Amino acid sequence: MTDVMNHSDTEADVHDRPADARIVTGRPSTHGDSYQLNTTTLIRHSARTYPEQEIVYRTADGGWDRYTYADSYSRMQRIANVLTELGVTPGDVVGVLDWNSRRHFELYWAIPGTAAVMLQMNLRLSTEDLGFVATHSEAHTVLVDESLLGVAEALAPHAPGVRNWVVMSDRPAEEIDTSLPNVHHLEDLMAAASPEFDWPMIDEKSAYSACYTTGTTGRPKGIYYSHRGMYLHTLSQSAHLGINDTDTVMITTPMFHAQSWGLPQSAVYGAAKIVLPGRYAVEEIATLVDVMITEDVTVTNGAPAIFSPMLDHIKTLDVPPDFRRARLLSGASEPALSLMREFYEITGADIIHGYGATETTPLATSNRGVKSTIAASLSEEQRWDLKRRQGLPATGIDIRIVDADGNDLPHDGVSQGEVLLRGPWIIESYYHLDDNADRFLDGYWRSGDVGVIDENGYLKLTDRLKDIIKSGGEWISSIDMENAIVAHPRVVEAAVIGVSHPQWQERPVAFVATSDGEDIGIDEIHALLGDRFAKWQLPDTVLLVDAIPRTSVGKINKRALRDDYGDLYA
Amino acid sequence: MTDVMNHSDTEADVHDRPADARIVTGRPSTHGDSYQLNTTTLIRHSARTYPEQEIVYRTADGGWDRYTYADSYSRMQRIANVLTELGVTPGDVVGVLDWNSRRHFELYWAIPGTAAVMLQMNLRLSTEDLGFVATHSEAHTVLVDESLLGVAEALAPHAPGVRNWVVMSDRPAEEIDTSLPNVHHLEDLMAAASPEFDWPMIDEKSAYSACYTTGTTGRPKGIYYSHRGMYLHTLSQSAHLGINDTDTVMITTPMFHAQSWGLPQSAVYGAAKIVLPGRYAVEEIATLVDVMITEDVTVTNGAPAIFSPMLDHIKTLDVPPDFRRARLLSGASEPALSLMREFYEITGADIIHGYGATETTPLATSNRGVKSTIAASLSEEQRWDLKRRQGLPATGIDIRIVDADGNDLPHDGVSQGEVLLRGPWIIESYYHLDDNADRFLDGYWRSGDVGVIDENGYLKLTDRLKDIIKSGGEWISSIDMENAIVAHPRVVEAAVIGVSHPQWQERPVAFVATSDGEDIGIDEIHALLGDRFAKWQLPDTVLLVDAIPRTSVGKINKRALRDDYGDLYA
Repeated sequence: MTDVMNHSDTEADVHDRPADARIVTGRPSTHGDSYQLNTTTLIRHSARTYPEQEIVYRTADGGWDRYTYADSYSRMQRIANVLTELGVTPGDVVGVLDWNSRRHFELYWAIPGTAAVMLQMNLRLSTEDLGFVATHSEAHTVLVDESLLGVAEALAPHAPGVRNWVVMSDRPAEEIDTSLPNVHHLEDLMAAASPEFDWPMIDEKSAYSACYTTGTTGRPKGIYYSHRGMYLHTLSQSAHLGINDTDTVMITTPMFHAQSWGLPQSAVYGAAKIVLPGRYAVEEIATLVDVMITEDVTVTNGAPAIFSPMLDHIKTLDVPPDFRRARLLSGASEPALSLMREFYEITGADIIHGYGATETTPLATSNRGVKSTIAASLSEEQRWDLKRRQGLPATGIDIRIVDADGNDLPHDGVSQGEVLLRGPWIIESYYHLDDNADRFLDGYWRSGDVGVIDENGYLKLTDRLKDIIKSGGEWISSIDMENAIVAHPRVVEAAVIGVSHPQWQERPVAFVATSDGEDIGIDEIHALLGDRFAKWQLPDTVLLVDAIPRTSVGKINKRALRDDYGDLYA
Repeated sequence: MTDVMNHSDTEADVHDRPADARIVTGRPSTHGDSYQLNTTTLIRHSARTYPEQEIVYRTADGGWDRYTYADSYSRMQRIANVLTELGVTPGDVVGVLDWNSRRHFELYWAIPGTAAVMLQMNLRLSTEDLGFVATHSEAHTVLVDESLLGVAEALAPHAPGVRNWVVMSDRPAEEIDTSLPNVHHLEDLMAAASPEFDWPMIDEKSAYSACYTTGTTGRPKGIYYSHRGMYLHTLSQSAHLGINDTDTVMITTPMFHAQSWGLPQSAVYGAAKIVLPGRYAVEEIATLVDVMITEDVTVTNGAPAIFSPMLDHIKTLDVPPDFRRARLLSGASEPALSLMREFYEITGADIIHGYGATETTPLATSNRGVKSTIAASLSEEQRWDLKRRQGLPATGIDIRIVDADGNDLPHDGVSQGEVLLRGPWIIESYYHLDDNADRFLDGYWRSGDVGVIDENGYLKLTDRLKDIIKSGGEWISSIDMENAIVAHPRVVEAAVIGVSHPQWQERPVAFVATSDGEDIGIDEIHALLGDRFAKWQLPDTVLLVDAIPRTSVGKINKRALRDDYGDLYA
């Protein structure tokens, strides 16, 4: 085992070489590549072999309806003809403003199927940023759900390049009241269109869809997914989650960002029954739980922010639902141990922690559970601890963790480094952006996340690179320290930042808000941290504050703290 | 549903266009293709994430031993270094003569990993044909298991281009007695080699391995699989069979032909435990059943010729084994209904009928079972009948059935046509063969098999194209008619061929051998067939024979019958 582990420790083999090292052997195969990996293949296959499979969707009035893969595929072909008649040609960008609706699902296949690019328009972006996205991508046609006409009307002045606004509604055109220019009505156009479309074979490196980052600094950056990458992501995720025709997949994560983590595509690949919950709010969580029960949902995706209220609701039910087959793919943040355990103990559902980003399509790692090969050697607590981590990389995804100088770090569960990713569905450059270089290293995408990989191959994230504290050449996780400090009975919330230091580069500074407003002595904080941190890692300064500053989405605003306290040791 | 079915009936859309119709949109993605699909990625990933996973293998003395993915991966790297030192460079062809051994498994990854091509040398070929294969492929290095030195020694004079013969044995070099020239001892070379190899990134269209057809007419024809095709086949098969780290996969089908149906690769992708039964004979079937029980095998592959004696042996056991998790992938011929049912009823194992050929890597269709969406509408008998068929096409494989003029036929379960296949792991040309054209149509490979596709998408083969009877513009399945005739209580065996006819192109002629040697009147045969065949399909001539002529492998020798009776209606 020594040999491979030496090798594995550093990942320093040729898969880490830049792409131009590729060998062409001069011995061609007889299998060529004339058959390109197109997403159309996935829907076409399942619509033909499972025409009777169902798609359940929420209607505009909040009810539920259903149709079949065959019905849906036929509508996709009508839409493809509509787009062509609106002047959409290969390579054109077509935007979508919609919830997780059946029309959005149809557009997922119809737009890329014509060789156009589906622009995912994130409703959470500001009007200015959304206008930037529409203009930067050169979108000339945008489809908008009737319920989002207000967003579109506000956007229109910021998106002068859009020459077709296509409204999606069950109501007739004459009942739709909008100030949008050049308005079309999708259903009217579809009724006049042919239900057969001659899907082209598209070069697989062509853009399939586009999504822009929602980062807080600078302009949104464009990620243009390829047909090839999406196809391979689909096969990998389907195999990992084991989705087949006996499953029911509910698409919970918004379809307007990172293609709802590729779950709609995986569901189609597996020919699963699909549930599209439309527009839902956390306040309507009972609706989601109800449909999970009535439609026997076995796979869905979401964040702890969804699964946590879902569990709270389930606890109020007289009879807990039987979700023993359910795989709940959870991203965005680490699920609390109690959430995972209670969900499992009450319903039988398996929360699967996954990791990725807009740039990674997004599945990069995922934690289907403890490897069968090591499960017997672990205690129950150790198994749950392992299950909380971000998991094992998907096959085909190369992962590295590197220090500040780009050197590979060992996979020992201790050495913290920035996570680098590379593979068929990992970004290789940002779209039309000149200063790409600092986001890539040797062909790998720099995630900006800091983590460790343990001897079993599991990734665990410890911090964001911009938040980790670099002290004396070593890294200290601000998140680990915050979690340790809030364990103090009087601490309500805590934040830790790195502050520039003339001798140590940075030193940790802790901020605490207490329940009684009274200070906690630094010795008491040090005693609390003593078990988990080395002496040199302990903060030299602990400051009492009334409250920890937060961003608009509720995260700790470390930039504000750094702005206010950055010169503490100057 | 009408729209999609119209479309599906004929498959006449643009996926059927030749490859040069591919659209390059001018809108590139940001995900590129610098990461090539290499098979090395599969083994490297599983060796790193599951170093402790086991591989159980049969030793030369008939015992069993085991090691880990990490051990195996380390040995693969040593072998890659050995090959390099023997002068193997990218694009070179390296032959293997071996059973399903652990060294063969290591070579599966080590040879293609260096960017060389693994030549699968089929032990069933004649010495002359094997010599042709070695020479046509330009193999300069061949690895041979000690037990096959006799085969290699007979081959050597027919393979003058081979300059390195590498013997694989657990015994020391000085104990190996062979007349082969330029002999090396693999284990000696490995002991001196480095356990780290710098795997190259290989252009994915490069040849990964080669296999030659075993057709009875003409020279063997070369199929050179690509890294890309093998990678995609692996993902598809793994998803279809649902292989993961809780499975144990036994590689039963010979690894020297069509890469044992890609099962070794799928097992590695799923990080399953692997069982390599080495050299086994049907007479040793108890050994296979024993290891399935002791190692808890959940997936294996084979033909009815293996599963049938396996079942016979199981029936002799006091306690039937519990194979409820087992998926037995069965190819080569249609499994008898009784075999499938009894295997299921006695052990719980699921026999999965698959279809493919050397040219198709080989998985083209497979029958995981009755679609969940239609199961409730079928009787138990109908479900079993459906399960016997060749199944649904793998996603990414385009399938067509066409008449003699190449016109698409409807998917109605009745219309018989030649099966055409196309996809990332389907052959596009034969290697260095000029007269390819008659084996391909519009970029599809012509399988030479005749079948129907029913309205649920299931393929059922009815005959070989060369055996089907073309009468008055319609096709009559010779196999269906033979199966019907042998149902007669006095018929021991039967054969039906098409004989040239001046008016009807061909007419069926039946040959029967009876238990008492007495003739059966044609009226009685017609009465027997009346239920299943139209009047015009009934044979005009039924001939009594002592025995039906057979080929060396026991199949009905229809060529001999056609030679003898071809001018019956002339």
